[in-house]
Amino acid sequence: MAKIVQCVPNFSEGRDKDIIEKIVEEVRKVEGTKLLDYAPDKDHNRCVVTFIGDPSAVKEAAFNLCKKASELIDMSKHSGEHPRMGATDVIPLIPISEVTMDECIDMSKELGEKIGNELGISVFLYEKSASATHRSNLAKVRKGQYEGMNEKMKEEMWKPDFGPIELNTKSGVTAVGARMPLVAFNVNLDTNDLKIANKIARGIRGSSGGLKYCKAIGIEIKERDIVQVSMNMVDYTKTPLFRVFDLIEREANRYGVNVIGSEIIGLLPTAALINCADYYLKLEDFSDEQLLEKRIYE
Amino acid sequence: MAKIVQCVPNFSEGRDKDIIEKIVEEVRKVEGTKLLDYAPDKDHNRCVVTFIGDPSAVKEAAFNLCKKASELIDMSKHSGEHPRMGATDVIPLIPISEVTMDECIDMSKELGEKIGNELGISVFLYEKSASATHRSNLAKVRKGQYEGMNEKMKEEMWKPDFGPIELNTKSGVTAVGARMPLVAFNVNLDTNDLKIANKIARGIRGSSGGLKYCKAIGIEIKERDIVQVSMNMVDYTKTPLFRVFDLIEREANRYGVNVIGSEIIGLLPTAALINCADYYLKLEDFSDEQLLEKRIYE
Repeated sequence: MAKIVQCVPNFSEGRDKDIIEKIVEEVRKVEGTKLLDYAPDKDHNRCVVTFIGDPSAVKEAAFNLCKKASELIDMSKHSGEHPRMGATDVIPLIPISEVTMDECIDMSKELGEKIGNELGISVFLYEKSASATHRSNLAKVRKGQYEGMNEKMKEEMWKPDFGPIELNTKSGVTAVGARMPLVAFNVNLDTNDLKIANKIARGIRGSSGGLKYCKAIGIEIKERDIVQVSMNMVDYTKTPLFRVFDLIEREANRYGVNVIGSEIIGLLPTAALINCADYYLKLEDFSDEQLLEKRIYE
Repeated sequence: MAKIVQCVPNFSEGRDKDIIEKIVEEVRKVEGTKLLDYAPDKDHNRCVVTFIGDPSAVKEAAFNLCKKASELIDMSKHSGEHPRMGATDVIPLIPISEVTMDECIDMSKELGEKIGNELGISVFLYEKSASATHRSNLAKVRKGQYEGMNEKMKEEMWKPDFGPIELNTKSGVTAVGARMPLVAFNVNLDTNDLKIANKIARGIRGSSGGLKYCKAIGIEIKERDIVQVSMNMVDYTKTPLFRVFDLIEREANRYGVNVIGSEIIGLLPTAALINCADYYLKLEDFSDEQLLEKRIYE
């Protein structure tokens, strides 16, 4: 397979279809990218765009999208329920295939610098790209939102990584950063007892002592009269799907409950499933290079 | 992922490097194909070429290879240990990704017809493309070899599907057909008792009553002091790897033996492992379309 990076920019317009189309069009125009989805939200007055492509095409498309948003959106007039700080609020870059996290971090720095220099927009690097640990969490970077950014950026701790220290009043501030892909993975149990799903969720999730890169809650699936352990796997390379699945099965057995199925919501990298096959089949020395599809895009 | 077909033509020259390079070059020349391997064999005086690509590019490259072989190889002077009947002896077409067996069968018929009409070479359709059940097995089609073909093709049962009934004395006869990819899959046991590996092999293989599309034998891995169930999976869509793996594990337990690992030799389609992950994770309603890599080549 070729080098593939996913990019999920969020921009601050969810109501004006004409503006939304013009901004999204910037992605379609760049050869080597594929627009997968864009979801405008009226209440949030915000739009989440998902596209993939080779690294240089993705960088170009992300910059052009940000440029177009800076032309068409005026943050001084923006309102919406979702926290936001810029016309292009955040640009996550996600390694999918044949691309390392370090490459995505480098991309994010180049992209951030270009946005800062050429568009005159203040840029914070966040997540894996953050220049300091307190800048890693997007919610913390965005705290104070658009209205508070001019003051915030004067603090030494919150000096932007690129672009002006003074707020660009029209375009606001943009966060750019590399992060792992999220895999939404749910496991269904043959009980309708939500307490059991929640006990299992607490046992397996990183925040309460379980597997580090797993977030989990118990939820009810009323139409099937069952409960589910609903998860976000935030780094499938370090907390793989098979490990969380096997652990849930064991924990469920302790309550006399069985796993009856699982589901993956939305998209995921092929490698997140190949490593499960590798584990269950006990493969010795398997390499991705043995996948025929991979060979054609070398 | 894009539509990918694999093609593994065998041509009857394994000694003259200049001729071999000129024939293989025909594959390299066609855009949209990727040459994976070519293995000339001096004793067999034969060369096996492996390439993949989109269907139309593969068809073009296979025809050009066959044409070049018909120009550079004279079968009336050919000798070698391997059974053979033509300058291009056989052209298997194998569906890898986003391509159905029926599409490969159609491809093989178009390719066979073009070889018959434009190159004046007799062509038999074999395997899944065979025009009658007795023509499915390549060994039966090739029986009598180059030297016996002129007589054989006069029989009604062996009238070629395309091209002349008279033998093309320079180029001989070519078999063209669609078949499933082979997956070479071995499972290692924690014993050095070859009898146990052979008993398990007999239990699980189609020929002795086991899983239909599995061929299996027991072999010794002397350097590790263990034995192995060595398999060719001839249709992973109907006899999947997980089923044979689980069955071997159960049969081994019956002798107090454990499975300690497995290995995949060479290349395989991604789908052959994705369906294992799907099985072991008990995925509900998973679709290939959820694989991010797949989306970019739509």
